[in-house]
Amino acid sequence: MKGCDAWEELEQKMERVMPVKAALTLLEWDNETLAPEEAGSLTAKIQGGLAESYHQMMTDEALKEALKRCEACAGAAERGLAGAEGSGDETGGSTADGLDQEEVRRAILREAREEYDRLSRIPREEYRAYQELTAKSARVWARAKESRDFSLFAPVLKEVLDYQKRFAGYQAKPGQKLYDVMLDEYEKGFGMKELDEFFRMLKEELVPFLKQVQESPVRIHDGFLTGDYPEDQQRELAEYLAGYVGFDFRRGVLAESAHPFTTALHNRDVRLTTHYSEKVDSSLFSVIHEAGHGIYEQGIDDSLTQTLAGEGASMAMHESQSRFFENVIGRNEAFWVPVYGRLKEWFPEQLKGVGRDVFVRAVSRVQPGLIRTEADELSYSLHILVRYELEKQLVEEDLDVEELPGLWAEKYEEYLGVRPEHDGEGVLQDIHWSQGSFGYFPSYALGSAFAAQMYAHMKKVMDVDGLLEAGQIEPVREYLREHVHRFGKVRTSRQILRDMTGEDFNPRYYVDYLKEKYGKLYQIQT
Amino acid sequence: MKGCDAWEELEQKMERVMPVKAALTLLEWDNETLAPEEAGSLTAKIQGGLAESYHQMMTDEALKEALKRCEACAGAAERGLAGAEGSGDETGGSTADGLDQEEVRRAILREAREEYDRLSRIPREEYRAYQELTAKSARVWARAKESRDFSLFAPVLKEVLDYQKRFAGYQAKPGQKLYDVMLDEYEKGFGMKELDEFFRMLKEELVPFLKQVQESPVRIHDGFLTGDYPEDQQRELAEYLAGYVGFDFRRGVLAESAHPFTTALHNRDVRLTTHYSEKVDSSLFSVIHEAGHGIYEQGIDDSLTQTLAGEGASMAMHESQSRFFENVIGRNEAFWVPVYGRLKEWFPEQLKGVGRDVFVRAVSRVQPGLIRTEADELSYSLHILVRYELEKQLVEEDLDVEELPGLWAEKYEEYLGVRPEHDGEGVLQDIHWSQGSFGYFPSYALGSAFAAQMYAHMKKVMDVDGLLEAGQIEPVREYLREHVHRFGKVRTSRQILRDMTGEDFNPRYYVDYLKEKYGKLYQIQT
Repeated sequence: MKGCDAWEELEQKMERVMPVKAALTLLEWDNETLAPEEAGSLTAKIQGGLAESYHQMMTDEALKEALKRCEACAGAAERGLAGAEGSGDETGGSTADGLDQEEVRRAILREAREEYDRLSRIPREEYRAYQELTAKSARVWARAKESRDFSLFAPVLKEVLDYQKRFAGYQAKPGQKLYDVMLDEYEKGFGMKELDEFFRMLKEELVPFLKQVQESPVRIHDGFLTGDYPEDQQRELAEYLAGYVGFDFRRGVLAESAHPFTTALHNRDVRLTTHYSEKVDSSLFSVIHEAGHGIYEQGIDDSLTQTLAGEGASMAMHESQSRFFENVIGRNEAFWVPVYGRLKEWFPEQLKGVGRDVFVRAVSRVQPGLIRTEADELSYSLHILVRYELEKQLVEEDLDVEELPGLWAEKYEEYLGVRPEHDGEGVLQDIHWSQGSFGYFPSYALGSAFAAQMYAHMKKVMDVDGLLEAGQIEPVREYLREHVHRFGKVRTSRQILRDMTGEDFNPRYYVDYLKEKYGKLYQIQT
Repeated sequence: MKGCDAWEELEQKMERVMPVKAALTLLEWDNETLAPEEAGSLTAKIQGGLAESYHQMMTDEALKEALKRCEACAGAAERGLAGAEGSGDETGGSTADGLDQEEVRRAILREAREEYDRLSRIPREEYRAYQELTAKSARVWARAKESRDFSLFAPVLKEVLDYQKRFAGYQAKPGQKLYDVMLDEYEKGFGMKELDEFFRMLKEELVPFLKQVQESPVRIHDGFLTGDYPEDQQRELAEYLAGYVGFDFRRGVLAESAHPFTTALHNRDVRLTTHYSEKVDSSLFSVIHEAGHGIYEQGIDDSLTQTLAGEGASMAMHESQSRFFENVIGRNEAFWVPVYGRLKEWFPEQLKGVGRDVFVRAVSRVQPGLIRTEADELSYSLHILVRYELEKQLVEEDLDVEELPGLWAEKYEEYLGVRPEHDGEGVLQDIHWSQGSFGYFPSYALGSAFAAQMYAHMKKVMDVDGLLEAGQIEPVREYLREHVHRFGKVRTSRQILRDMTGEDFNPRYYVDYLKEKYGKLYQIQT
């Protein structure tokens, strides 16, 4: 598209749109970390006004024309290429030195087209009404959770779900199922067909394996992880750990919020939050997890900065990186060889007499519970399994929302062996559905599976654990940067995974990884 | 304008514009307080994109039409009112309970019209080129200041000045002088005529008075103000003091930046910064000063929130409130009667043996120096006098910028008795001119004079010092809120001052206030 006038026009349009997007990101970040409590409803109004501007800019006639003309240009260029060089290389001409800029432009064009289509298919009046509904819905959800009473939330949840189904209908290709449309929004290439297979494997393999672990005579001592860990020291340690795994503080900041999250204005302004807790491992692994997200965003190629392709490839790919750092690297004894001494310097009293091996076993203990965000590595994906099955029923089988609490409790009992005593620790625990995010949860489990597949591959090309033990995280991180991070959204998560590991997504790696790691820890013959 | 269709249309337009303005405010705040260092140039790009959106939204045809139709509506309503009720009340029907909403609408319409006119008179190409120039200019200024070499800055300053003159020419009414246009942008009703008189009085009265103070045999001991004041305790104290004088932390936050400032997204989201210093008084009075700005913004009536009239009336009125809190209240022994004990609890060692009277004398000491931002209360306005005289010459007498350093040094020697050794502590000390802010400086001195006139008036209606001594700041602050803060930009600073004090601006109060306060401190017969 180089030399194509329409491309320059599209770029100019985007130079006005992207700042609005960045401002929305900053407002959200600020609202979660710093803004005064009484600013709330006005902040929502400011966000609403900017979101409308974004919507209008992204759906205007001139943009539509520019898109069409860019597509014509791109089509002509590809036909030219095909004529001159054969069928072309699917993955483009990117090298280790930099991305193929023609591929970059095609990706930006594709993202702009998808965003245009997505937004312009929804009637503006409905879009606005839906914004108001979800603002209300989040408040109702918070109150219901506090009251531990799902019946307060059920009517508004039903409304949100109905909107989401209608919106999915607007986007659906002929014959496409609604839940597939929703899944596609978070993860291209992973619809119900792929996910049914994935979750079936998890269910068949991990549910019985978890029972074996629970029946194992191995007892893991972890009382020392809870106690008097002063917040100031946790804060220093969090900065140290984020920096140690490779988060670049010249391009990012770390703050505090109730629920840790990561966001980015662009690859030179990446923002993590964490929380500090009586349970020191919660604080330690939270910051390593968020640093993983942050390192991904910081590793995106500069040619994508402030473009629609300048974000992580997908939710699952993002989660693969955060979980790679948190679990594959962080819950790995090799990682702690050069680091545990530092940790003990911060907390000499609290960790007195606790050897490195004891510490690593403690932070890896398996303890199935009710709350997803506090789950251990092994049982985590079973929390997601519950949600996947329920979402499918809600969207595809018109399950009545009133049925959710009962089904939730049954599934938790069946898969994890625990049963919530009230809705607050059951079906009301996550904010996602109140915001209309149906189809989002599967990414969490998929991401863990991506991470395991990458780890299996990387162990073949480098001595990952040996490097960690020697305190050399950089080659590991650089490998991820070269094969994952820098591409942003230029390629889909599925393609990135395939290009990197040489094979298509294969959940077997995940199951094997978990069984090997936790079989060893709990002395289970597999 | 109630019941006028065009008004609703204007309101809808502004509901899209104001969020962009708020986002720009937040980006600037974030950039000064938190953003990572490498975000810089991209942040500027984001700001540039949003500023262009703002410009376009504020100058579009539909807005122009809505303005015209609102003005027709307002004109008809006023003629109706005049017919029915006589000539009407100039200050509107606001009561202590709330603002007259018709007056509010007229003010918003007036502000929108002025903004529309101001922006639409500047050709878009020139506007954009100027934005680029000032971004560059600020960098050149920073380098020149670091190198202490004005000649590096002179060429770009000349360019900025030429743009500013040309822009002023676009805005000028027939026969209006360019510097008057510039002054009007910061302070309506105070042109060269008023300011010449004001500064002449300061020069005639304060220059010789300052010499008397310097020749006074009174010696003030202030060594204890500099020393080991740990930053964490300064931070706690800053929060205490801001809260004590009435800054509401449910509607605001306090952070840190190189140069303290205050900004507001709206009256429920007001943001102060301060700095911490080895000189504890610099930190103490900095936060009280900024809290004064913040209290003003928080006191603006809710009916003005997120409208173009929802800001302080003017730069000088803002400065009057910050300086009222900093100097009239803060550098007043009565204030410290209930507070000094708390201060000593924070710094028992540092203030050992220092009595309250000794402390208050120390923080009020007069010590003319080279740097405006570090100036004492008495010599402060003479720093402004220097700048006013030079700006006038630059704009009205085509003074060559090359002449600035020499004239600067001469004037400092004449008015303050000090002479800079290099440009860094002379003509390069302030950022303002590099940003094209000609006409801004006089507001600082005017604000101090407003504060003195308010104080003289308030002492007649309440026992200000008695209340301070009793730890009752609230009635003082509430009086300011009722007579100044809540009006936002609904009325001009000059009108607010007149309505409150019952007379027009009179600089005599300022001179008398300073002479009485510092004559007493330095035992000078006046």
